[in-house]
Amino acid sequence: MIARNILLLLLCSNVFLAAIATAPQTCPADASSGCGDNSSGEWEGEFFPGIPKIKYEGPSSKNPLSYKWYNADEEILGKKMKDWMRFSVAFWHTFRGTGSDPFGVQTKFWPWEDGTNSVAMAKRRMRANFEFLNKLGVDYWCFHDRDIAPDGKTLEESNANLDQVVALAKELQGKKIRPLWGTAQLFVHPRYMHGAATSSEVGVYAYAAAQVKKAIEVTHFLGGENYVFWGGREGYQTLLNTDMGREIDHLARFLQAAVAYKKKIGFNGTLLIEPKPQEPTKHQYDWDAATSIAFLQKYGLLEEFKLNIECNHATLSGHSCHHELETARINGLLGNIDANTGDPQIGWDTDQFLTDIGEATMVMLSVVRNGGIAPGGFNFDAKLRRESTDVEDLFIAHISGMDTMARGLRNVAKLIEDGSLAELVRKRYQSFDTEIGAQIEV
Amino acid sequence: MIARNILLLLLCSNVFLAAIATAPQTCPADASSGCGDNSSGEWEGEFFPGIPKIKYEGPSSKNPLSYKWYNADEEILGKKMKDWMRFSVAFWHTFRGTGSDPFGVQTKFWPWEDGTNSVAMAKRRMRANFEFLNKLGVDYWCFHDRDIAPDGKTLEESNANLDQVVALAKELQGKKIRPLWGTAQLFVHPRYMHGAATSSEVGVYAYAAAQVKKAIEVTHFLGGENYVFWGGREGYQTLLNTDMGREIDHLARFLQAAVAYKKKIGFNGTLLIEPKPQEPTKHQYDWDAATSIAFLQKYGLLEEFKLNIECNHATLSGHSCHHELETARINGLLGNIDANTGDPQIGWDTDQFLTDIGEATMVMLSVVRNGGIAPGGFNFDAKLRRESTDVEDLFIAHISGMDTMARGLRNVAKLIEDGSLAELVRKRYQSFDTEIGAQIEV
Amino acid sequence: MIARNILLLLLCSNVFLAAIATAPQTCPADASSGCGDNSSGEWEGEFFPGIPKIKYEGPSSKNPLSYKWYNADEEILGKKMKDWMRFSVAFWHTFRGTGSDPFGVQTKFWPWEDGTNSVAMAKRRMRANFEFLNKLGVDYWCFHDRDIAPDGKTLEESNANLDQVVALAKELQGKKIRPLWGTAQLFVHPRYMHGAATSSEVGVYAYAAAQVKKAIEVTHFLGGENYVFWGGREGYQTLLNTDMGREIDHLARFLQAAVAYKKKIGFNGTLLIEPKPQEPTKHQYDWDAATSIAFLQKYGLLEEFKLNIECNHATLSGHSCHHELETARINGLLGNIDANTGDPQIGWDTDQFLTDIGEATMVMLSVVRNGGIAPGGFNFDAKLRRESTDVEDLFIAHISGMDTMARGLRNVAKLIEDGSLAELVRKRYQSFDTEIGAQIEV
Amino acid sequence: MIARNILLLLLCSNVFLAAIATAPQTCPADASSGCGDNSSGEWEGEFFPGIPKIKYEGPSSKNPLSYKWYNADEEILGKKMKDWMRFSVAFWHTFRGTGSDPFGVQTKFWPWEDGTNSVAMAKRRMRANFEFLNKLGVDYWCFHDRDIAPDGKTLEESNANLDQVVALAKELQGKKIRPLWGTAQLFVHPRYMHGAATSSEVGVYAYAAAQVKKAIEVTHFLGGENYVFWGGREGYQTLLNTDMGREIDHLARFLQAAVAYKKKIGFNGTLLIEPKPQEPTKHQYDWDAATSIAFLQKYGLLEEFKLNIECNHATLSGHSCHHELETARINGLLGNIDANTGDPQIGWDTDQFLTDIGEATMVMLSVVRNGGIAPGGFNFDAKLRRESTDVEDLFIAHISGMDTMARGLRNVAKLIEDGSLAELVRKRYQSFDTEIGAQIEV
Repeated sequence: MIARNILLLLLCSNVFLAAIATAPQTCPADASSGCGDNSSGEWEGEFFPGIPKIKYEGPSSKNPLSYKWYNADEEILGKKMKDWMRFSVAFWHTFRGTGSDPFGVQTKFWPWEDGTNSVAMAKRRMRANFEFLNKLGVDYWCFHDRDIAPDGKTLEESNANLDQVVALAKELQGKKIRPLWGTAQLFVHPRYMHGAATSSEVGVYAYAAAQVKKAIEVTHFLGGENYVFWGGREGYQTLLNTDMGREIDHLARFLQAAVAYKKKIGFNGTLLIEPKPQEPTKHQYDWDAATSIAFLQKYGLLEEFKLNIECNHATLSGHSCHHELETARINGLLGNIDANTGDPQIGWDTDQFLTDIGEATMVMLSVVRNGGIAPGGFNFDAKLRRESTDVEDLFIAHISGMDTMARGLRNVAKLIEDGSLAELVRKRYQSFDTEIGAQIEV
Repeated sequence: MIARNILLLLLCSNVFLAAIATAPQTCPADASSGCGDNSSGEWEGEFFPGIPKIKYEGPSSKNPLSYKWYNADEEILGKKMKDWMRFSVAFWHTFRGTGSDPFGVQTKFWPWEDGTNSVAMAKRRMRANFEFLNKLGVDYWCFHDRDIAPDGKTLEESNANLDQVVALAKELQGKKIRPLWGTAQLFVHPRYMHGAATSSEVGVYAYAAAQVKKAIEVTHFLGGENYVFWGGREGYQTLLNTDMGREIDHLARFLQAAVAYKKKIGFNGTLLIEPKPQEPTKHQYDWDAATSIAFLQKYGLLEEFKLNIECNHATLSGHSCHHELETARINGLLGNIDANTGDPQIGWDTDQFLTDIGEATMVMLSVVRNGGIAPGGFNFDAKLRRESTDVEDLFIAHISGMDTMARGLRNVAKLIEDGSLAELVRKRYQSFDTEIGAQIEV
Repeated sequence: MIARNILLLLLCSNVFLAAIATAPQTCPADASSGCGDNSSGEWEGEFFPGIPKIKYEGPSSKNPLSYKWYNADEEILGKKMKDWMRFSVAFWHTFRGTGSDPFGVQTKFWPWEDGTNSVAMAKRRMRANFEFLNKLGVDYWCFHDRDIAPDGKTLEESNANLDQVVALAKELQGKKIRPLWGTAQLFVHPRYMHGAATSSEVGVYAYAAAQVKKAIEVTHFLGGENYVFWGGREGYQTLLNTDMGREIDHLARFLQAAVAYKKKIGFNGTLLIEPKPQEPTKHQYDWDAATSIAFLQKYGLLEEFKLNIECNHATLSGHSCHHELETARINGLLGNIDANTGDPQIGWDTDQFLTDIGEATMVMLSVVRNGGIAPGGFNFDAKLRRESTDVEDLFIAHISGMDTMARGLRNVAKLIEDGSLAELVRKRYQSFDTEIGAQIEV
Repeated sequence: MIARNILLLLLCSNVFLAAIATAPQTCPADASSGCGDNSSGEWEGEFFPGIPKIKYEGPSSKNPLSYKWYNADEEILGKKMKDWMRFSVAFWHTFRGTGSDPFGVQTKFWPWEDGTNSVAMAKRRMRANFEFLNKLGVDYWCFHDRDIAPDGKTLEESNANLDQVVALAKELQGKKIRPLWGTAQLFVHPRYMHGAATSSEVGVYAYAAAQVKKAIEVTHFLGGENYVFWGGREGYQTLLNTDMGREIDHLARFLQAAVAYKKKIGFNGTLLIEPKPQEPTKHQYDWDAATSIAFLQKYGLLEEFKLNIECNHATLSGHSCHHELETARINGLLGNIDANTGDPQIGWDTDQFLTDIGEATMVMLSVVRNGGIAPGGFNFDAKLRRESTDVEDLFIAHISGMDTMARGLRNVAKLIEDGSLAELVRKRYQSFDTEIGAQIEV
């Protein structure tokens, strides 16, 4: 009887054909084709029509489109919450994330996307970004050059595309919004398969330098407060074909040039290195905070850079996020936080929104000890899961991330008011406060 | 002085503009566009024009396009090497691998590719496959339905596409070549984002069943010797939204149906489950060999399935490859080997060709203890690195994989002839060969 | 100047000699000698003189020696908290833990210990155990045979030692307290270095059987509700010298014998397998829940055993604790929980008290779905850190563990009252509640 | 019938009692008692009576007590093998290793051990060490102060014990043998549970300084060529109670003092830091090579220290051993190698002898590129498995480790003679050898 039923299934009886017909025929059958309403030109009306400006409604609210813990202007430990946090939306995840992964194609088809990678589409997307920022009540955004404008056939064409989109962004930013940081995407294009500043090809190295030059200019033009170097492919797949010493020397020279150029054009933003241990490479030269510090010291760059700590990168390198933050802090190098989290049982970067309150408390503890993180902030380097395909999810995810950090801050305030943790630590080391200890600590 | 030099670099002096101009402008600037010579229609001449049929030349040969250790017809331990090995080329890696990864687009642009996903292109690619098999001297190939023919707008269209390409493959196979196994690709399309046989949507479940039905038929038609189930998305991202018990029940019912259908159409190939712990999911239900065996037992499927052990999946699940092979073997379930390896410091599936002779020796030890692996074989579920972009590399990679397994077999022959390892193990347990032991082992 | 100061330090000036003199000269300089007041004989008065019976004082209490969330007799979701929890103290960690680790000797020197391993000391220790249980308000305890009484020169002597201590324990238990489970320690003694039920020596196998026989009898005598098998050394260090199939067969025969013996003597407690992936072995045969289920199925033991899930073992095997609990639950095998946690960045068993409220909520979710866990419970298989050397810490650690689980239960009550999580899951699968789905789920 | 047989087993029938009687009653039933022939005083005759001086017999030899690949005086790449290698025996593993692990007591009872930790026993053990070195043909040994002489009740007593044993060692060394390195054991004693140079107690800090002072003196006296700092407990269990910045400052001051003292007494040996990521701590400050370099740079110690790279520590920190060696090498800091290996599926330090030829080849590649490793060498920081209890195993393990490194060196010689790997790397970077590249590499 079971077998009969099963054969029916496999023989596609009418009943099941009906089921198949109603199966979510999520477009497209052929992943390379466009999807959605391919109307080009200007987008009419709102991008997020059903979504109001998100407000603080307090912990008892059941409204998913409200803040329960993040109250931007509320003062905690002598600062407004928004000034402790300085939240930022990551353009690439929020507006270029497609839901694809190594085993599957795009699942997200936002209504404003026309399936092209045109400049017109780039501009429309930028408008969506600013509506999103405004509705969320967030004043910062982060971007790679190639996220916001299409790559061209030549560097000149790429730069021209970028200029058009950046001009629009400048206009849309108004007085309040600006980039937390900008950066150059030096890992997607095939030319960067051997690295950019550590490529074995001098032409690629020069191309990357030119791309960084433009990205710094653009970040400066938009009033960006920081500029980030994440060396996605600055590393190796195997040491057998790699001259590691020579590559790292090249990287140092590259960053020295960036420092010189930044100063030349009067960009006062902080330069940041973002450590990550591996992925896509087998080994990335900026493995973790300590490795990055060793590099900066060796090449005389310690005064010129700070670190952008990402929690998921921290755990991939075998450290807690709190450890990486503290390592940066005690070296005076805590520059920015890419706020996300990973899965403790997963060995690749999942870029999840952080929703663990305990973890958020530890993160905020470092920030408060640091006296705040400005001109850095919290960039949501976090993405919707592949299965999350509703536009509304973009808001819910950010709200949960912001509320979690806000709970962390509120917990830290309680810890500090209580004072017992600090007292415990003080007492633990008090033998070093004696005369003998003082001689050691001279 | 350094600064000046650096500024020159960043200001793109003429010298460096020249360098940039010569930078590998690997097509395409825009990843979504096609690349290469977009000529459609029939491909003239050879796909691998400079490559001869690969021959055995022995260990002293310096010719990279020769076998140094794999001598197909040489007899070792009573069988020809080719009968111990039964090597197979994986269509997806070898002919559909593009070099893309989560941080970068396509790097490989094989000359025969026209940038489309058309049926004509699928046929041309199939011809390349058979030229490759013949030049390599390999008699088996493995495929997913959607690797070899384009997905259509409807199931009917997809099936029709498949039929066209399969008809050609049947013709090209001749008498000697046949699939080691076929399978259905139930993870790339967005409809499968929640799983296929464990989808929360009954329509998707039914669609997957229909796709498997067709894939079994096609494998049968081509004379395939096995059929594989790899449950890429049969798992969960979070237990919070998952009814794990219900999903696994559905999976069992799905496989019971496949068994019934296989028998109905007279397909005598072995059904295989391929364990993997995770990726793309956080947890995959077929975690490892032992988990798969628990599942098969629970649902009365133990007599109907064997296991397809992949070495890289083994290490991701916390086991050595040899452990997984032995677990399958002592349960009478060693059905096939997806021959590859991972990187011991990397937490995702890298699908590298196995070149470690020690590891290969352990793998072959299990195969020899099993009395061979037919009707299974060694499928090269392994891919070129992103940076490997020469057509010739496809040959070199397979040759190195085959030679490594061949060295493993030769080592096992030595171990067995020597006899001391077996004797050591025998002696270790000899107290159980006594009268007392016999009572325990009754 | 710094150098001078430093040399002073190294030359041990009077000042520093004074410092050294006051350095904690924790006994003993020679780790093998006894420490503390070596007075044998009966211990006078209380073991924990300053510690009152621990009471529930609610979340606002600042008293570290009170429960803030665990209110034993409060009813939640239709049961008293103590009946949901059934907390148990692990004798080995609490009374035999010394703080030693692979890189350091004993750090804990409880005042009642006389540095010997005598029967008299064992009895005194047992009295401490019952004072601890009574003050904590916990009704269950767990033990290995060799934890509670010294090993003798012969099995007869060991059994006689055990009988003496067990007689005292029986008397001290009174009517309320009893073992949650007992077990035999089959891993410390050198004879078990190759395993016990999987030893390559039949004599060791028989010795282990005799030891288990006695441990079951003793557990039965004390009114124990379960009996546990943790196969610490049932595995291998290398497959090269191991006949894995034969060893696992022996293990099955061993457990079949235990089932027969349990029935023979009328012991009605549940037999439990406790999975762990490795440590001390490279591979342990009871790797995780699924592996253990495969084993029980294969050897016809599924009706006779349940699983004892330990959270730290779960994460070492690559799973979340919640995953292992759910795997056990949906197979009807959730028998007991060894409540602890590990460190997500550490690759060995740290046996920490669980203090993560989110994790505790997930654990309690499985327990509530299971309708409770009786006759199992929550055994605190958790230990003080090496640096925790105050007797009071034993209480504080258990209180924090109990309060954390209590918060988990309170959170689950809220989740269930709210109902939205269950509703979300119901809706996700509702297409399987249709006529079509029903045919699949037949 | 099975049941009857099983019950017999559990009821200990005569047959099985006999089996139990013959079960390896490895002494001691009570682990705290001494074992073996407790005769104190001088040991008569040889320690390894059946073992001859180990000789090179070549690859075809079947004699386990011969070298097949290591031929001490054979010249390879312009140096004698023994000068490339400079092998060293680790006193602690070879002479103090007991086979105990966190789940089991001692399994090894060497015939010369009398179960005490007396000075007389320490001397006898030292004689065994030198017989071992001489028979093995190894000229170096490594030790911790507390390995070779018993800790006393006071520092003075400990130092006096040490002096006695060191005087004997000096005499036994003769002209050829000397320490590769010495070190102080700053992790076993309870006083070091919070660290030594990073202890929160100034008295412990001072005690550690005094211990290091003595250990440097002793190493100097014995003609040791290096002195090692392995910061086993220099780290933290939780950041919550830790002032990481202050602790690392203390550590730096400690090492600065050691440098000053070394110079003061005229010790010319190299000071070495040995990185390890964790275990016993959750985080160790000398995490890996890069972290150690950052530390040395920050505190002005870069000129005063080199690194001692241990392969198993490398893999625990997420790196290949070759990566750590190359990181040290390109920074001019490759000082010594603790030659061992771990298990790629195990998350703790297993200290296995390295027997993987591929790995050994990579290790030797770094050493050859470094022009040798003197005054460092290869210290076998590796131990017999718990199950390895024959005295002869000490020889076999070292021989296999030495032969494996020797095969690595022979492979490197072939690679260098062949030249194609170096040529491949040269060509890969040749665009940087152009005029443009030269400007970058200025």
